[in-house]
Amino acid sequence: MPPTITAFERSPDGGKGMARDMRVRWALEEVGQPYDVRLVSFKAMKQPAHLALHPFGQIPTYEEGDLALFESGAIVFHIAECHAGLLPDDANARARAIAWMFAALDTVEPPIFDRSLAKILERDEPWFEQRQRVLEDSIRKRLGGLSVRLGDADWLDGAFSAGDLLMVTVLRRLQGSGLLEEYPNLAAYVARGEARPAYKHAFEAQLAVFTSASTGLQRRA
Amino acid sequence: MPPTITAFERSPDGGKGMARDMRVRWALEEVGQPYDVRLVSFKAMKQPAHLALHPFGQIPTYEEGDLALFESGAIVFHIAECHAGLLPDDANARARAIAWMFAALDTVEPPIFDRSLAKILERDEPWFEQRQRVLEDSIRKRLGGLSVRLGDADWLDGAFSAGDLLMVTVLRRLQGSGLLEEYPNLAAYVARGEARPAYKHAFEAQLAVFTSASTGLQRRA
Repeated sequence: MPPTITAFERSPDGGKGMARDMRVRWALEEVGQPYDVRLVSFKAMKQPAHLALHPFGQIPTYEEGDLALFESGAIVFHIAECHAGLLPDDANARARAIAWMFAALDTVEPPIFDRSLAKILERDEPWFEQRQRVLEDSIRKRLGGLSVRLGDADWLDGAFSAGDLLMVTVLRRLQGSGLLEEYPNLAAYVARGEARPAYKHAFEAQLAVFTSASTGLQRRA
Repeated sequence: MPPTITAFERSPDGGKGMARDMRVRWALEEVGQPYDVRLVSFKAMKQPAHLALHPFGQIPTYEEGDLALFESGAIVFHIAECHAGLLPDDANARARAIAWMFAALDTVEPPIFDRSLAKILERDEPWFEQRQRVLEDSIRKRLGGLSVRLGDADWLDGAFSAGDLLMVTVLRRLQGSGLLEEYPNLAAYVARGEARPAYKHAFEAQLAVFTSASTGLQRRA
């Protein structure tokens, strides 16, 4: 039995791959693991059956035999631990790749996600413009540090890893904002991630939820 | 040689254990690993020597032989992988404990940290009160989900794990706010974490930076 993940029945982004199932799909594609997808509505996400899988009523979740996981970072890590291709074999390199996983989600993502959320929730507030500038300054601090560290390398620490996978999904949210484009090496890094065949397959699979007649269950083999 | 971590020379909290070195100290105490601490000033954190260890110029970092790590979550995970006591042996239970590590840092901490930061940086802004209420509502959603999941258990999933360690450090920031106290089982959970001998030793060690003549290097054996 392939694992089953959950994704939005109707993603707020309309299939741009910003929802967090995209990370999990991409990781599964990188390691060549087929998977099933169960689509859930916003209403169903807050019902007991889904809350038993995800205590905060979000997506994605991951079910495989008698294991149930939540949190996209933890699911990507589990996939990376169970299959070759997303974490280096060398113990120190592996620990550093895991550090980039945490850095992507704990240090780089928060101001980027807050900016997007504020654009939706605070657009009519009198402080909107001022707070956007505050958030953009926070984002630039992160991007500046990241840009210096990446330099002219292809990936953050040697070969492509789960750290790069998560970082690319985090940075993608800034595409077209002008902020990412202030750091040409980071824009190229994101493009490099998006050019990977596994990324493309994952992107097409999440987009298919919107472009094909949805039955609530999707199989990606 | 024991590992060396970095911590604030002068923590903004004055020794309340809110800085992120506290998590790493606690994890090291739980597994009985002696460690050295190098204290860094805010100025030194932005200098090339520290940026080589931490691309975003923050603390804590972790150096052990030729391995250098950053991100408190990644450091705690590394400690948990290298020593017994912070992650279960059973593969599924281990994956779930790791999911709680990510949940603590990626889902529960952001609105809690934002609220504290806004209290410092935005107190004079016209949006201060309204945004505090928005953040408090976000926090309540997280605490509500967490409280239901914890129920009357001592820890989030069986025995105490690195997931509990991180979650307790995240929730501690709310003590005295009234928010944590709305969920008695969570307040008791935090108190249970703080009652662990390893927590107490770690807390005393970070407090000693403030109460003893600091030489810039601290040894905790």
